[in-house]
Amino acid sequence: MREYFDKELTQLNDSLIEMGGLVEQAIKNTMKMIVDGEDLLDIAREHENRINEAEKSIQSRCLHLLLHQAPVAHDLRYVSAALKMITDLERIGDQAVDIAEVSVYIKDKKQVFNLTHILEMADNASKMVTEAIDAFVKSDIEVAKKVARQDDIVDELFNRSKNETVELIHKNKELGSEALDIVMIAKYLERIADHAVNVAEWVAFSITGSCDLSD
Amino acid sequence: MREYFDKELTQLNDSLIEMGGLVEQAIKNTMKMIVDGEDLLDIAREHENRINEAEKSIQSRCLHLLLHQAPVAHDLRYVSAALKMITDLERIGDQAVDIAEVSVYIKDKKQVFNLTHILEMADNASKMVTEAIDAFVKSDIEVAKKVARQDDIVDELFNRSKNETVELIHKNKELGSEALDIVMIAKYLERIADHAVNVAEWVAFSITGSCDLSD
Repeated sequence: MREYFDKELTQLNDSLIEMGGLVEQAIKNTMKMIVDGEDLLDIAREHENRINEAEKSIQSRCLHLLLHQAPVAHDLRYVSAALKMITDLERIGDQAVDIAEVSVYIKDKKQVFNLTHILEMADNASKMVTEAIDAFVKSDIEVAKKVARQDDIVDELFNRSKNETVELIHKNKELGSEALDIVMIAKYLERIADHAVNVAEWVAFSITGSCDLSD
Repeated sequence: MREYFDKELTQLNDSLIEMGGLVEQAIKNTMKMIVDGEDLLDIAREHENRINEAEKSIQSRCLHLLLHQAPVAHDLRYVSAALKMITDLERIGDQAVDIAEVSVYIKDKKQVFNLTHILEMADNASKMVTEAIDAFVKSDIEVAKKVARQDDIVDELFNRSKNETVELIHKNKELGSEALDIVMIAKYLERIADHAVNVAEWVAFSITGSCDLSD
């Protein structure tokens, strides 16, 4: 019985790593759209569909484990945490498509803007997702705490991005519409980082029984 | 057998109307936050949870119907459409919380801004959701087409809201941060309207077998 359960948990971990990989790909794809100006909207939607499918499949797996194996204590927290964190991963997938859709509008004017902060945000947010899942698979609370700390960096970059946008529009209103599109992309990235923190909180829950990540 | 199926469909309709009502309430709640400056974030999150629960419950109902009744032709399209549109309704619930979270930041400065377009957008988006569900329940393609047409109004209001924000920041950069928050609320409302159009397209699919809503 335990052997079967452990095998199921290994498969659950593998599926989560795979779903996390898809989410990373989705973020990278949208950044490619922004940097290279390529129209990869269809690929973005394909990523979203695959992430949604992964969520459904992992959800079934978790529900099956809960109903048929009736796990207790740590095992129960582990499966419940997996069930909750996939909702956050799915929302990240949604937000990647939101970014892809907005990025189409800035395609022709992207040379005019300084996208350093946006790319840094994307890079951090993407790492946070990977690390949060890694923390779950390895049951490592320290890695989960690191993810929570990284969120401050993303928030700071978001504020800088907002301030730069305000300065830019204040000086040159002709670029206003695209500048607003860029700040929306920044907002979506800030939300992606928030979802990564939620995942990290579920990691804490699976280990300690509380979502608290403070030191 | 048919009697049982019809009874199930009636219950499905009732659940969808209820879920639509929840979505409307969620939008109204966020507008109350913006207009009155009340902190209703907990209520917003409660709405989101109830919408998520409604989605899960309707999904189970649809899957049960598909698996155990194996409907064909119009019945199959009807149940499949319900299964798809609840994803859009759930996303609207997410976006209502997104709005609620942003609206906290503008609380103290809302008197400074002209929120007419935001409120008009919210009013239109909310109506579009109600009408799209109404179109589904009554299998009325004309109402579904009306929803699609209303989206142009919301898009136009969004563009005006963006332009006003650009003007405002251009003149007074001190208000920039809150002005960007307001344009983000407008963006979320524009997305809510898009999801209402998606629901209307699923209505078209349930009636004609195609998502096309053009005249």
